[in-house]
Amino acid sequence: MARPVSTPELVIDLDAVADAYRGIAAALPGIAVHYATKCNPHPDVLRRLHALGSRFEIASAAELELLETLGVAPGEVLYSNPVKPVAHIARAFATGVWRFAFDSHDEIAKLAQVAPGAAVVVRLAAPRTRSDVPSEGKFGVDPEQAVELVLAARARGLRPYGVAFHVGSQMLAPDAWSRPLRAVGWLMERLAEHGVRLSMVDLGGGFPARYAASPLPLAEYAAVIEAGLAGLPYGVEAVIEPGRAVVAEAGTLVASVIGTALRGGARWAHLDVGAFNGLMESLETGNRLRFPVRDSRDSAQRDRFHLTGPTCDSQDTILFDVELSADLSVGDHVYLGSTGAYTTVYASHFNGFAPPTVRCVSGQAAPGRGALVGAPPGQ
Amino acid sequence: MARPVSTPELVIDLDAVADAYRGIAAALPGIAVHYATKCNPHPDVLRRLHALGSRFEIASAAELELLETLGVAPGEVLYSNPVKPVAHIARAFATGVWRFAFDSHDEIAKLAQVAPGAAVVVRLAAPRTRSDVPSEGKFGVDPEQAVELVLAARARGLRPYGVAFHVGSQMLAPDAWSRPLRAVGWLMERLAEHGVRLSMVDLGGGFPARYAASPLPLAEYAAVIEAGLAGLPYGVEAVIEPGRAVVAEAGTLVASVIGTALRGGARWAHLDVGAFNGLMESLETGNRLRFPVRDSRDSAQRDRFHLTGPTCDSQDTILFDVELSADLSVGDHVYLGSTGAYTTVYASHFNGFAPPTVRCVSGQAAPGRGALVGAPPGQ
Repeated sequence: MARPVSTPELVIDLDAVADAYRGIAAALPGIAVHYATKCNPHPDVLRRLHALGSRFEIASAAELELLETLGVAPGEVLYSNPVKPVAHIARAFATGVWRFAFDSHDEIAKLAQVAPGAAVVVRLAAPRTRSDVPSEGKFGVDPEQAVELVLAARARGLRPYGVAFHVGSQMLAPDAWSRPLRAVGWLMERLAEHGVRLSMVDLGGGFPARYAASPLPLAEYAAVIEAGLAGLPYGVEAVIEPGRAVVAEAGTLVASVIGTALRGGARWAHLDVGAFNGLMESLETGNRLRFPVRDSRDSAQRDRFHLTGPTCDSQDTILFDVELSADLSVGDHVYLGSTGAYTTVYASHFNGFAPPTVRCVSGQAAPGRGALVGAPPGQ
Repeated sequence: MARPVSTPELVIDLDAVADAYRGIAAALPGIAVHYATKCNPHPDVLRRLHALGSRFEIASAAELELLETLGVAPGEVLYSNPVKPVAHIARAFATGVWRFAFDSHDEIAKLAQVAPGAAVVVRLAAPRTRSDVPSEGKFGVDPEQAVELVLAARARGLRPYGVAFHVGSQMLAPDAWSRPLRAVGWLMERLAEHGVRLSMVDLGGGFPARYAASPLPLAEYAAVIEAGLAGLPYGVEAVIEPGRAVVAEAGTLVASVIGTALRGGARWAHLDVGAFNGLMESLETGNRLRFPVRDSRDSAQRDRFHLTGPTCDSQDTILFDVELSADLSVGDHVYLGSTGAYTTVYASHFNGFAPPTVRCVSGQAAPGRGALVGAPPGQ
């Protein structure tokens, strides 16, 4: 791969996006895939997924407008953010979006007002399970409260349509889907007693990507999910909303070393990209996301480094204690793998350092999935 | 105050900025104030501070270019980021910046190459002390290593000029400056043995702002700093680099309630601003920064809320367990005080939610410092 003219640059391999999408669709046959637009809304990524038959999930009117410019039919878009500004609901409903998540009486009132008769999807709280990107319990209600909300929605002229939950991003434990699916079953039974039959269960996202270590195969997730769906009281359409699992591994962030330093016995490498202009998830997760790394020097002699960003902010650090070429020097490139998800979308210009430029490649121009960073350690 | 046409809107009271600047300058007479540009680089804020005689501290060439457009003389700017891209150093040096921080041999090599003869300021590590915005030890070396670095810089034709440290942002303990100042004294003595006499000590930033609770008065910080400076082996120019203490309290973020919800017994209020489009420090600090809050309803009947943002991301939460009007409803405004620092600079458009617009006010248009949010609880 030719060195980019300037760094930081995020290279997205669209063939790898396609491979990941197909892998997910094949592992979960009969389940509709609605890509989580927020994760990486680059138009070329969305266009490729649309061409492959992916559907989409949105959290705001702006995301919908972007999808519309790419020819996505609003009727196939799920509006999965349970709390929405009124104007966004009205805009989406007018455009043809007809399925909306909710988990509160306020949302029922807003939907009844500006999206009369809309199909509504109640959001259940998922029990806290181990996930590398922690959740704060912001959304979702318990099944008893869900029954009450669905009946209240029906009473306001809305159409009880589905139930959704989200186990948390980068979920490493497949059985995280088990308990929520049992709760879905309980809810379906209770609602049936009130004459409500649901059409859809939205299993959310959370499917993991490979960082330094590989997650369990998708087949293990599929097995848990299929068993859970089989246990439901009647058949419903099932959908998933993967984001990270679709695009993370397709991205390689090319950064330049702007300085190295020895401080208190530790070697530091400072890059032109850090938490604030592209790798905010490092900060969000307390540096637990271990992006696979490699450098352009690729020397046999190795050393351990703390990898940090260009700002004067001490929280701008990407990874502690990673192995790179011992002679890593100013001007060398560092390749950060699995950076296709939740990177550019969180980036700011803090301290005057711009976010990465993005270059999408495919076909002959693509280096092949993972080729830039090689196999992660221990593989 | 008239309701803004659209929210979120960050209102910055430039008179409050001026008051805070004057208060800091008065509390620390004889110490030059270099405002930390990164904290809030709004041109109107910088212009007002420049007019008041404030100097500036930068961390990148882009920050310098912004200051230049406002008529700031580069010769009065400190380039305090210890690790800088070569091109940024060259750009700053060519423009007239002559003082550069460093803490590594790499930086010496870069400075000697593109800023020959520049004055250099060695960065000492400050011991970890209680601070609401945690530090990861990214910058700074111990005094022994500093001696070696200063001599190495001199050997490369650079001019040993000063020593700097930073105690950590929002530092609530004035005595955090004591130990680093003793280390500065030790360093000055050791360097004197090598014929090196320093001209400047940079005491960094870290001076706190008022959030829900008031910090100790500036006089207590000044007393510790004056005692520390008096204990140095010879007189040097002292400078500080406040950011948060200058601008935080001048900012009030006006947000709209987009929904309320009851989940698991807790009441949630969802606003059109959250961690990702303006309040990233909530996430960075684990929601420990207690912004004072008030709402437009201002009812006698109060209730406790978790205050969260508009995205579908569970980490988008601003504050847990704050008191607001019990009848808080969709469309009401919530005013978040002390939001003038480190807000817009970290904001992204994640999920399609735009950062706040910024409106600077002064004179008759200004509501008066703190008037929007009133006195914090317990005052």
